[in-house]
Amino acid sequence: RKGVSPPQPFGARLRFLAEADRLKTVLRGTTIFDGSRRENSAEHSWHLALYAIVLGEHSVTDSDPARALKMLILHDLVEIDAGDAPVHGNHDPALQEAKEQAAADRLFGMLPEDQGTNLRALWDEFEAAASDDAIFAKSVDRVQPVMANLECGGGSWIEYDVTIDRLEARVASKIRLGLPAVWEALRPAVEDWFSPEGKAPAE
Amino acid sequence: RKGVSPPQPFGARLRFLAEADRLKTVLRGTTIFDGSRRENSAEHSWHLALYAIVLGEHSVTDSDPARALKMLILHDLVEIDAGDAPVHGNHDPALQEAKEQAAADRLFGMLPEDQGTNLRALWDEFEAAASDDAIFAKSVDRVQPVMANLECGGGSWIEYDVTIDRLEARVASKIRLGLPAVWEALRPAVEDWFSPEGKAPAE
Ligand SMILES: [Ca+2]
Repeated sequence: RKGVSPPQPFGARLRFLAEADRLKTVLRGTTIFDGSRRENSAEHSWHLALYAIVLGEHSVTDSDPARALKMLILHDLVEIDAGDAPVHGNHDPALQEAKEQAAADRLFGMLPEDQGTNLRALWDEFEAAASDDAIFAKSVDRVQPVMANLECGGGSWIEYDVTIDRLEARVASKIRLGLPAVWEALRPAVEDWFSPEGKAPAE
Repeated sequence: RKGVSPPQPFGARLRFLAEADRLKTVLRGTTIFDGSRRENSAEHSWHLALYAIVLGEHSVTDSDPARALKMLILHDLVEIDAGDAPVHGNHDPALQEAKEQAAADRLFGMLPEDQGTNLRALWDEFEAAASDDAIFAKSVDRVQPVMANLECGGGSWIEYDVTIDRLEARVASKIRLGLPAVWEALRPAVEDWFSPEGKAPAE
């Protein structure tokens, strides 16, 4: 196998970009919208970027679209080492966070120092949901799986036996912080699905 | 199957985002970097966005990173209808362009009119390589498959029986317009692969 090993800064940047390719092999709890297979975290991140472009004007935070886009492209890279922790799963949050911090150290540490520091700061900001851009980006990250599950007839809501109360606590509450009107637009279909009739398989 | 059908503008935007999901099922000529499977156009678009973030400072055009990022997120959507036309394949360019124009009409036409017009204009600009942002974005789109092929031992260069002259004409010439220093950094490994010894399978 011929690797890519030119001198700095290209060597560092190109090795980081090659390593990032592995995000295409990290599988999530949700499926693609036709339900045919699990979604991977790279294509998921692309979809979120498209959501941010299309839904940006509904953001209630004073968000800079370019920063939010960057965050969404970067936000799942740590899953290369730490794996995906499905929002409705029962992972240990402290352990998962420790794994993700170690992954961020390793991955952003592959880049030339200034750039690694800048991109790591953007990832930290996203993780902390500590700014208008991060709140918007987090809303986008929460709303896309709701649509995936509605489109494929339940998806991870069935697999993880999710209740509407848990959806409210872990998902809707986050969407409302950044994209309340989008949540209101989706709510009737969500409530319908969680109603006793909604979960019954189609005839 | 429960669809998503709230009123305008959400209905239009959410239906567009659901339709866009199909890009995850469009397979390209190249593989992911470990060679284990074909790459799909959605995860490819994510990877290009990351390339643009990481390599932006090497752009020789006066490119606006936010516009280039948007272009890269949008640029392959037309493949949902038109399919991927591999750069080393022998498709009819006029026919492929007609298919892509029809696809752009349909897909961007799903959005509220102002937004559809804006995003379509960005896609047209990318296709025409008619601006600094588009030249940078096109360079990124050409350089990532070179790295994929180097990483997996040849990939689509073997499948399409590519010569270094064809690579120069269809790929390197485009990379040089936007990211000449990145091409120079990759060139020794590329020339090595295309040398008589380089193509020999590893012992
Ligand atoms: Ca492309």
